[in-house]
Amino acid sequence: MNVTLRGRVRHFRTVTFDARRNAVRLIEQRLLPHQFRIVATRDFRETARAIRDMIVRGAGAIGATAAYGLAQGVRAFSGRDLAKFSKHEETVYKTLKAARPTAVDPLNAMNQVRAVMRTGPTVEERQALALAAAEEFAQADVRHCEEIGKHGARLIRNGMRILTHCNAGWLAFVDVGSATAPMYAAQTQGKRFHVFCDETRPRSQGATLTAWELAQQKIPHQIIADNAAGHLMQRGEIDLVIVGSDRTLGRTGEVANKIGTYTKAVLAKRHGIPFYVAIPLSTIDWNLKRGFDIPIEERSESEVLGAWGVLTNHKSQITNRKSQYVRVANPTSGARNPGFDVTPPDLITGIITPAGLFKPDELWEKRALLGYSKSQD
Amino acid sequence: MNVTLRGRVRHFRTVTFDARRNAVRLIEQRLLPHQFRIVATRDFRETARAIRDMIVRGAGAIGATAAYGLAQGVRAFSGRDLAKFSKHEETVYKTLKAARPTAVDPLNAMNQVRAVMRTGPTVEERQALALAAAEEFAQADVRHCEEIGKHGARLIRNGMRILTHCNAGWLAFVDVGSATAPMYAAQTQGKRFHVFCDETRPRSQGATLTAWELAQQKIPHQIIADNAAGHLMQRGEIDLVIVGSDRTLGRTGEVANKIGTYTKAVLAKRHGIPFYVAIPLSTIDWNLKRGFDIPIEERSESEVLGAWGVLTNHKSQITNRKSQYVRVANPTSGARNPGFDVTPPDLITGIITPAGLFKPDELWEKRALLGYSKSQD
Repeated sequence: MNVTLRGRVRHFRTVTFDARRNAVRLIEQRLLPHQFRIVATRDFRETARAIRDMIVRGAGAIGATAAYGLAQGVRAFSGRDLAKFSKHEETVYKTLKAARPTAVDPLNAMNQVRAVMRTGPTVEERQALALAAAEEFAQADVRHCEEIGKHGARLIRNGMRILTHCNAGWLAFVDVGSATAPMYAAQTQGKRFHVFCDETRPRSQGATLTAWELAQQKIPHQIIADNAAGHLMQRGEIDLVIVGSDRTLGRTGEVANKIGTYTKAVLAKRHGIPFYVAIPLSTIDWNLKRGFDIPIEERSESEVLGAWGVLTNHKSQITNRKSQYVRVANPTSGARNPGFDVTPPDLITGIITPAGLFKPDELWEKRALLGYSKSQD
Repeated sequence: MNVTLRGRVRHFRTVTFDARRNAVRLIEQRLLPHQFRIVATRDFRETARAIRDMIVRGAGAIGATAAYGLAQGVRAFSGRDLAKFSKHEETVYKTLKAARPTAVDPLNAMNQVRAVMRTGPTVEERQALALAAAEEFAQADVRHCEEIGKHGARLIRNGMRILTHCNAGWLAFVDVGSATAPMYAAQTQGKRFHVFCDETRPRSQGATLTAWELAQQKIPHQIIADNAAGHLMQRGEIDLVIVGSDRTLGRTGEVANKIGTYTKAVLAKRHGIPFYVAIPLSTIDWNLKRGFDIPIEERSESEVLGAWGVLTNHKSQITNRKSQYVRVANPTSGARNPGFDVTPPDLITGIITPAGLFKPDELWEKRALLGYSKSQD
């Protein structure tokens, strides 16, 4: 999507590949929103480190990064020995897999690349096929997000005030995003609307990444404390909620997403405000039978006990664009920090997918449309 | 309540008076939780500045500070001329009133002191009566909180996990607090329980003040992001919610309190968790007919866009105990920042008052017990 650099609007994707230099190019997300920088990884080990160290984050984005990383790795192989090539390929695969061991997207992405690549009879052809398959994976990620945008934009009417939580924007994908896709599509259609971004403590992805995206895209928006949405709903100032999802259960319609999502769904229900979840098909889990069994990661206490930001002077001017951690909380207190929560289907108005809009309890019935595969059973 | 300083447990009140030095002594709350310091104001103008600059905050605490400030001011008068004394008294009153123009507590407190003081026939007697009345005001604040504790402690059973929001602790009063009073009383009765403190963005009074209080008092507690309470309730990890209130409508049972309170009440209702509000009688508004008319202060954007904390080194050790502001959010985005919200009576299990426990819709009926006065009509 658009980024304004030194007054000029330019188009960027979160993840791209530089074939000439055999490098994966990534937006360094840890520096946002205070600095915009593209980093290029020189080999697959650097790419794995970029995933591990959160230079890139978000389901679609780390999937594409792993796909490109696999291509990058096998393209660095010199020689014609297919057995040696395959051994090298295995090393590349395992290195990238180990970078984010609990995430399913890098695995799915690399398996797609591998399946295509292995149809090539020679090392050279496999190298070319790997890159082509990685490019196709990235293109498909963009297409899926654009489809989400097309279906979701119908929900947005002129003058609406939309709430979103965390960042399910283009920075979490190759481009366009999931929860943001309907907004970007509606903007293209000339609709005017306002977005409230939950700041999304403890990691503040709403205040940093989503607000940055919307500002670049010139969509009117305001950041609110996570505490404020209930009050705004009560006063009739929110018309629609759209969030993303880390995992959606195909059998039950339950949605796991960033901590606080469930709270917003409960509030929306009380106020009769439509609550939508935008997802690519890859995040549907067709196996798990109940949301209670989704493991909820307990993250570091330090996230809750402090905040990352940049220092300012007495005129509120930023004095140093390098982020610093400050301890906010009482130094002798600890914290609980569940990273995700699970929203039940009775609170969800609809699921926006690349294949259309569905009620959460329709997913299983419509599974043939939604990429269900028996092998996952 | 207790504060541990250099390993020794000592008792402090938020506000006290040093008659010998004619000084109001205050805990400097802007330095908490990272520094504990008592400041003494030398004259009524300094006391007014301490209220204005938030060295002291919280309904009961600023009421007592204004009461002592009035006594301090009139005690500094020299001479026997009653007319000149009254003129001076008026100056003191107006100066203290102007320090927090929207707050009702300093006014009520000073009016109580004035009524007693004016029964004295001489300057000297009025000076003595003013101090006696201010002391009585502070003592009454403590007694009321202790009564809240006595009635509220019945709600706390062994092993309970209690959620609280913002700071309605002893730092907001002369001592004991409102929402914390049942906890301190239950602790004295030997009950064991655990407290979750909402961090309470954007000003983080839960993470800073409430957590500090509970740590000093050795009550087991953990800070959580405001986003996390819904998930903990869903998993059955919260048994009781107790919050304070800035204003409770005697005619409707609606409760205005720190932004985010309403959200917690909606969540508690969904999960069948008792939701209690602890209040001194002085916060009951007998005039207003509907909560929608309570003015909701829109506070500075900077609170939402950043955070206050202390810098730490790579080992998470605090390197400088002076708080710094960091900008967290995207620098080109703005914020909405409503400071309070209103919780309707259908979400409130009960109101804990010094006069006992009441259903929110019983307040009007029981107004004779609850300090209703016709003059407020």
